[in-house]
Amino acid sequence: MWRINEGHSRGKRLTMAEDPLSHPALDKMAGEEFLQEAFQIILEEAVRKGTDVAEKVCDWREPQDLQKILDLELRSSGEPQQRVLEHCRDVIHYSVKTCHPRFFNQLFSGLDPHALVGRMITETLNTSQYTYEIAPVFVLMEEVVLKKLRELIGWGSGDGIFCPGGSLSNIYAMNVARYQRFPDSKRTGIWALPRLAVFTSQECHYSIQKGAAFLGIGTDNIYLVGVDERGKMIPADLEKQINKAKSEGACPFFVNATCGTTVLGAFDPLVDVADLCERHGAWFHVDAAWGGSALLSRRHRHLLRGIERADSVAWNPHKMLMTGLQCSAFLLRDSSGLLQRCHCANATYLFQTDKFYEMAYDTGDKTIQCGRKVDCLKLWLMWKANGTEGLEKRVDRAFEFTRYLAEEIKKREGFQLVIEPEFINLCFWFVPPSLRGKQGCANYWERLGKVAPAIKERMMKKGSMMVGYQPLGSKVNFFRQVVTNPVVTKQDLDFFLDEIERLGTDL
Amino acid sequence: MWRINEGHSRGKRLTMAEDPLSHPALDKMAGEEFLQEAFQIILEEAVRKGTDVAEKVCDWREPQDLQKILDLELRSSGEPQQRVLEHCRDVIHYSVKTCHPRFFNQLFSGLDPHALVGRMITETLNTSQYTYEIAPVFVLMEEVVLKKLRELIGWGSGDGIFCPGGSLSNIYAMNVARYQRFPDSKRTGIWALPRLAVFTSQECHYSIQKGAAFLGIGTDNIYLVGVDERGKMIPADLEKQINKAKSEGACPFFVNATCGTTVLGAFDPLVDVADLCERHGAWFHVDAAWGGSALLSRRHRHLLRGIERADSVAWNPHKMLMTGLQCSAFLLRDSSGLLQRCHCANATYLFQTDKFYEMAYDTGDKTIQCGRKVDCLKLWLMWKANGTEGLEKRVDRAFEFTRYLAEEIKKREGFQLVIEPEFINLCFWFVPPSLRGKQGCANYWERLGKVAPAIKERMMKKGSMMVGYQPLGSKVNFFRQVVTNPVVTKQDLDFFLDEIERLGTDL
Repeated sequence: MWRINEGHSRGKRLTMAEDPLSHPALDKMAGEEFLQEAFQIILEEAVRKGTDVAEKVCDWREPQDLQKILDLELRSSGEPQQRVLEHCRDVIHYSVKTCHPRFFNQLFSGLDPHALVGRMITETLNTSQYTYEIAPVFVLMEEVVLKKLRELIGWGSGDGIFCPGGSLSNIYAMNVARYQRFPDSKRTGIWALPRLAVFTSQECHYSIQKGAAFLGIGTDNIYLVGVDERGKMIPADLEKQINKAKSEGACPFFVNATCGTTVLGAFDPLVDVADLCERHGAWFHVDAAWGGSALLSRRHRHLLRGIERADSVAWNPHKMLMTGLQCSAFLLRDSSGLLQRCHCANATYLFQTDKFYEMAYDTGDKTIQCGRKVDCLKLWLMWKANGTEGLEKRVDRAFEFTRYLAEEIKKREGFQLVIEPEFINLCFWFVPPSLRGKQGCANYWERLGKVAPAIKERMMKKGSMMVGYQPLGSKVNFFRQVVTNPVVTKQDLDFFLDEIERLGTDL
Repeated sequence: MWRINEGHSRGKRLTMAEDPLSHPALDKMAGEEFLQEAFQIILEEAVRKGTDVAEKVCDWREPQDLQKILDLELRSSGEPQQRVLEHCRDVIHYSVKTCHPRFFNQLFSGLDPHALVGRMITETLNTSQYTYEIAPVFVLMEEVVLKKLRELIGWGSGDGIFCPGGSLSNIYAMNVARYQRFPDSKRTGIWALPRLAVFTSQECHYSIQKGAAFLGIGTDNIYLVGVDERGKMIPADLEKQINKAKSEGACPFFVNATCGTTVLGAFDPLVDVADLCERHGAWFHVDAAWGGSALLSRRHRHLLRGIERADSVAWNPHKMLMTGLQCSAFLLRDSSGLLQRCHCANATYLFQTDKFYEMAYDTGDKTIQCGRKVDCLKLWLMWKANGTEGLEKRVDRAFEFTRYLAEEIKKREGFQLVIEPEFINLCFWFVPPSLRGKQGCANYWERLGKVAPAIKERMMKKGSMMVGYQPLGSKVNFFRQVVTNPVVTKQDLDFFLDEIERLGTDL
């Protein structure tokens, strides 16, 4: 018998024989009961209420108030089971419901029941994805899923691994590129190397910056390439920057192109970038963390034309495909074992060479992690249930919603698109009546820049919906609306626009 | 209504109005039904059978055979709900049950129902731990949990963050140390810096090696410090290595001491190491990923004496405390914001400076990740249910089991301790009858080194238990037994020793 919580569990104390080591120290029956009760709370509070438009997206509290409401303190004694269940309710209640049909705040949203079950199985089995011995099913499954993603890119062979997030996938790419060019640097460090130059557009994800700093390359050695009015990298400027770096004695070893920039959803021109990388011998990485899932759509995959020429790709199915955080694939065209050679340390306590099965199945040395969560099952199970065609429909639906919203915005007074969307990022300003027609006034943009934060504060406090905003270059704060959740309907989007009007009309 | 799986879901097709965008594309009721059914499968197959000694730890199959049994292929069309549920059963059935009372293969094991519920809530809420806006409860909770861990170290203030694994915590430490000493290097890279020297013992975790390579420092710049016969760093040799590095023109910026080495469970002498770090101005990091949890035990925390003098600590509650993968705290003594300054990129789309709440609550820029999983809830909920005292009891119990096993091993013929355990790693050889008394023979050690792999293969194929083995320096393959799971009893450990005898007696 398991004993969960001495003194509290089910109101009774277990009588133990004199030697406690002869008895389990967890009450198995009580454990199962707790799991059952907690699961029903999860279903009721997080799944059912979380997806109900009649409920708030978040019952917002100021940090100081929330601190008082939640009893967060950790004490010497354990708390009774019923109190622990109340904590579960509270945690769920005061959290943001990212599965709510009116949550549009991030590049992820929604709740896929198959993916969720995949996550729950993963959490219950609680193993680490490093050896076949300890994760036989998941070692095979990860390879099947990665192969499928590589096929969508257009690669017949290759390599890859799931990473804890797209930032690390991008940083891995930079490290593998460095290793491929200067394999000795793994041993010697980079002191003897020429200054390494990284190329990426102004609109790239900030993980490129974080990676350059982390890898010892330094953010000064990032050459930011200019973008056009749609946020796409200008190939001519990339070439200019590469030549500039060369003339400064630096080695242009790594070019990052983005498919689906974070704010505007722009796709860099991959074919042109690939040509330049080839000409200058630079590693060609594509950060498709956000835009990669468009590869599933026969109608929209042209956005990523040329991606098959990349040396590596970062792609996060946890965003548009709704697998749940985190599911981030780092994919390589190389099939010579470069990734393993770059990251391996050959720990003898884990990757024994005298095992009774083929060592190639122990994939854990491809990463800089040791223990690594299983990230493939949630995507695999969802794919099994929906098929490639089911996922394609979701992707197409997201594009259709973006089109719908863009057209609605054009019809409505006071709404103004920042740019015509090519992907599913819909960027727009709401101009309140007090500012309409005053674009010529001196402080127009300054005042407009305060509108989105004010509306955001109101919607958060009301709990009616959530959407992100940000400035971009010279453009003052604007909303970025993203719809990936399949439960969202036109009615929700109409509500969304109406609500912005309601909340912002007096500003 | 949600539609899960067109054509399969519950045997009927939904009639849609002409505009599919006016209807949700997921069937909410079917989704809930699937969750309910799948949860009962998880409970039955993974929790109940997974913890049942009458069941196998793993129904082992060769990779090629398992590939045939599992239908892993991802196809164009989705599969019917019942088939998807069968997949769930298969995935669980052929996976290793790390919660089984006879699973001793890793530094993690067992299943805590409270921690599991914490993980399930986390997965259902599916948010990212970067801003208060999107994770209000978890931003506050992470700080409470980190503070508690810091208090156990002996720090009244400080900083920290949960990382995806102890390897990254160690690598963060190295990066923060570099930044603290050479803040410009974040911008300029490390070319202009003196050669950076890292000091760690021969017995350290391989993430130090991976980190030095990844950060551009290079593995050649790791000075391996000698250890005594118990696997503890020799302070005199550390000083010697530091002086050697200095004489070679290198900058000794980072010393890693290990609390609980992976194989032997050795604790480096922290007080002596702290003195040397102080004298030479080096950052003092303690990798307590494995041994940190001994801080919860009043009886055993002396093993980490001096840890309060560290500049940073890595501590993985997912190991000994059974929170589930991954729960890895990177903790700093600094409270000036060093971690944030080191890793920040100040992305304006996420960390807006014109928010309506205090920006200090947006902790996501302390990491090199962007999206980051919530890792605090599972530990918090388990702590709430058990109290510090409940966790202490688990730690003490693990020590008691190790004592029990060590004494049993001394009583049994053919079993030989590698060293007397000071922590909960129990390292031993099994000497089969054919080798007993032949220690003088020429090929004795070579033959003994083949015993553990052979027994391991047999136990895996039988499914009766799992335990790790490895060589270490000149020592040939030996078993490393670790008991952290509170459901384990003396009877399981007696079985463990008996089974090794049974499986190895004819070798």
